[in-house]
Amino acid sequence: MSGLDLKRRLEGFIREVWDQGDVEATGRYLAPLYTIHHDPGDPWERRVLDLDGYKERLRQSRAPFPDQKFDIQRLCADGNAVAMTWLWNGTHLGDIPGFAATGRILRLSGATTYFFTPERTLTGHWQVTDRLGVWRQLQANAGGAAA
Amino acid sequence: MSGLDLKRRLEGFIREVWDQGDVEATGRYLAPLYTIHHDPGDPWERRVLDLDGYKERLRQSRAPFPDQKFDIQRLCADGNAVAMTWLWNGTHLGDIPGFAATGRILRLSGATTYFFTPERTLTGHWQVTDRLGVWRQLQANAGGAAA
Repeated sequence: MSGLDLKRRLEGFIREVWDQGDVEATGRYLAPLYTIHHDPGDPWERRVLDLDGYKERLRQSRAPFPDQKFDIQRLCADGNAVAMTWLWNGTHLGDIPGFAATGRILRLSGATTYFFTPERTLTGHWQVTDRLGVWRQLQANAGGAAA
Repeated sequence: MSGLDLKRRLEGFIREVWDQGDVEATGRYLAPLYTIHHDPGDPWERRVLDLDGYKERLRQSRAPFPDQKFDIQRLCADGNAVAMTWLWNGTHLGDIPGFAATGRILRLSGATTYFFTPERTLTGHWQVTDRLGVWRQLQANAGGAAA
């Protein structure tokens, strides 16, 4: 399992599954069980998902932002893990809890460490995103005062 | 420059400089210039600091939380970079903008990629922290409604 190999796998996963929203491609990348070890603000945090559970998370997460795109900043591969820093943007085209769709572009940044099995499938992640930054954009777009 | 070597250097830096607040130790770890490439919410974001500038950032950042402690979750070393995921806690003993000291323990999580020079000194970082999580704790401690 070379680091370069895992980084290419992860790039394919981000492009196909998260940028393009190819739900069926998920099966080529995921292990039978996927653990969300840490991900404050993600409704699935600390859950262990099977493939169908992950597909549902993907559908629900992408629905409000169907044109979303990750801009990978850096990948660090070490052992069974690849740490990814990223920028993200997506047009807010669907409602999310507390905020109706605005049609505005939202921007977010985050850092995610992905864990691989020896078979090079993804078995979980540990993630932090700048939730306060996106919350302030939502407040501003909704016409409210920023925090 | 082995990955294990850089990870040990980074662990020493976090323990001595950030946990223990040893301002003079900073000089053993930092390159002459240190760039904060990305760090939403950090007042020094996008600035290039010399050693005195970094020491001032350290003093100001640590002052409200003098007993702060990083709990390193995982280190991924790759080339000149080490990606670190972490939990953090500190007692809120000094005022911060908008929030007077409460004496309560605050908890934060984040992920930071540190960049090294060939001489194994730190030359910058790219970081995201869960600012919304800490903001909600501050609001709750201040007796206000959580966001």
